[in-house]
Amino acid sequence: MNNRVNVNVDEIKIKLHTIFKGVSVPKQDAEIVINALLDAETSGVESHGLMRMKAYVDRIVEHKIAANPIIKVEENGVVVRIDGGNGLGQVVTMCAVNKCVEIAKKYGIGVAAIAHSNHFGTAAYYTNIMAKEGCIGISATSAGPTVAPFGGMDLLLGTNPFSVAFPATKQVFCADMATSATAKGKIRIYAKSGKTIPVGWALDAEGNDTTDPEKAIKGILLPMSGHKGYALAMIVDALCGLLSGANLSCEATSMFNTQNLANVGHFICAINIEHFLPLENFERRAQEWFEKIRTSKTRQGMRIMIPGEPEAERKLLVKDQLSVLQETARTIDDYYKKYAV
Amino acid sequence: MNNRVNVNVDEIKIKLHTIFKGVSVPKQDAEIVINALLDAETSGVESHGLMRMKAYVDRIVEHKIAANPIIKVEENGVVVRIDGGNGLGQVVTMCAVNKCVEIAKKYGIGVAAIAHSNHFGTAAYYTNIMAKEGCIGISATSAGPTVAPFGGMDLLLGTNPFSVAFPATKQVFCADMATSATAKGKIRIYAKSGKTIPVGWALDAEGNDTTDPEKAIKGILLPMSGHKGYALAMIVDALCGLLSGANLSCEATSMFNTQNLANVGHFICAINIEHFLPLENFERRAQEWFEKIRTSKTRQGMRIMIPGEPEAERKLLVKDQLSVLQETARTIDDYYKKYAV
Repeated sequence: MNNRVNVNVDEIKIKLHTIFKGVSVPKQDAEIVINALLDAETSGVESHGLMRMKAYVDRIVEHKIAANPIIKVEENGVVVRIDGGNGLGQVVTMCAVNKCVEIAKKYGIGVAAIAHSNHFGTAAYYTNIMAKEGCIGISATSAGPTVAPFGGMDLLLGTNPFSVAFPATKQVFCADMATSATAKGKIRIYAKSGKTIPVGWALDAEGNDTTDPEKAIKGILLPMSGHKGYALAMIVDALCGLLSGANLSCEATSMFNTQNLANVGHFICAINIEHFLPLENFERRAQEWFEKIRTSKTRQGMRIMIPGEPEAERKLLVKDQLSVLQETARTIDDYYKKYAV
Repeated sequence: MNNRVNVNVDEIKIKLHTIFKGVSVPKQDAEIVINALLDAETSGVESHGLMRMKAYVDRIVEHKIAANPIIKVEENGVVVRIDGGNGLGQVVTMCAVNKCVEIAKKYGIGVAAIAHSNHFGTAAYYTNIMAKEGCIGISATSAGPTVAPFGGMDLLLGTNPFSVAFPATKQVFCADMATSATAKGKIRIYAKSGKTIPVGWALDAEGNDTTDPEKAIKGILLPMSGHKGYALAMIVDALCGLLSGANLSCEATSMFNTQNLANVGHFICAINIEHFLPLENFERRAQEWFEKIRTSKTRQGMRIMIPGEPEAERKLLVKDQLSVLQETARTIDDYYKKYAV
């Protein structure tokens, strides 16, 4: 942990606002992105937290992300097609989330297929927001090609994460998972910490099992549960790419590449619970169910948690100070100095 | 394979019709159930095929399944709530599928939460039908409590399978997976064949890893991919149980129990592709993507298949004869003799 440093949350916010202002991102859009990054960072998902700012800003500077995009929204029944105008993924996706919740409140469901977007951070950020609106929220995104099909060795699928969240009386259930055995960001954390990764997460570039995070980053990620994760990754690609016209994972550009437009696709769905039954009945029954599961018999040395609880618990620990990787803090300082002029 | 026997498909159909007629199931309802069972059997999913007839008929005889149910359909926007009147799962679910496709054609999406139903067979049966209607089909069902939460030992979740299917020009993508490491029906097949099961599928009743299928059947199934499968099982329970008011898996009765009503819940969703983009564009791009994946570099000794292909290939092999377990054939004959009077 000696490569970590404490930073003040409010100071970080001010610095990030200054940086995004420096690359011409409108204040309300910067607010969305900063909230999403801090939400991931404070939830313990630092692979999708503050360390991502650099890639976003670099791509804006290289004109590969539009700082102030024209987002086109086309409605057809309860369906929305969104052209994100190559904007920041968080800004484009929040537009879809707001629209889907609005439609769901009227008709029961709202669903959006989004093209011409960029990396949107954690899928959980959006489903948590929809859950707090009384909806079952679903979100998914395609990602750069890092994962091989089941039985294959070519990088044709992304980590293709998705999230589902719904409310209970005292908490929000929120599952957010990569459809690969793990996320590349997680392997990067292992690499930075000098730890080995478990067998089954990845192959090296020649297709051999590896526990070396550096070889895994240059190699091939494996789908979770073999053929099941492979199918899940394809489902996410179909919802995010085929339905919206965005790039499929196998056509996508790495978010760290500054040469091409990404044309990332996302999928958002809000299901309004109140259209099925009184929300309070749903939430009460959900909470009772959570208590039953949480207090059931555990295996030796284990604790049973409801999905979303580990992240919610970590968030509670953060007051005004936040522990971040030294490198992340240094990058923010460097960029701040550059754009504070 | 010496415990298998060849049967004539048309003869089996006639016998099954006679049996279901004998327990007062209307002909058009029997047709639905028989189609669904034969679809599973010919797809190679015999755990959800003809061997299930016995449990359905026994429960009808014990008045635990209604042979001729009153199915109530309540629409609200694009949302449908269905009370299955304790009918056969296949009959109730096909009612939901037809309604969802009809609504999706008008508004883009139709979604149904179903309560008071019973075992519905394979989830793939319904999504394949929706895909052939130009939709992305989603189906899910809760199931009896056979799976422990991640970190736990109590049976509080079901195998809770779900399926997603969508069309391409030459084939249908169809994924159908239990959210447990495996399905209990699959372990029964291992038990009948005298084979051991892999570590990681199940624990014995005391919570120890086991490779003995008999101990696994009496023991505890594990979720797929640990915490990920646990979260997926809870999502399925939320969609099938919380949203519809049906039993959650932890409240459910085994389908082999003839003492209680099951109140099984299902979830059906149809997304009309044409509401997003021309169907032929979607299907053409999907097919090109499948070819790219299928013809990519394989690992030693492996073959890359698109989800749904193994089942579709097996179906093509079945002409007028079908190889079934001797016990299944014997049971059909016994029940046929009983009800042919």
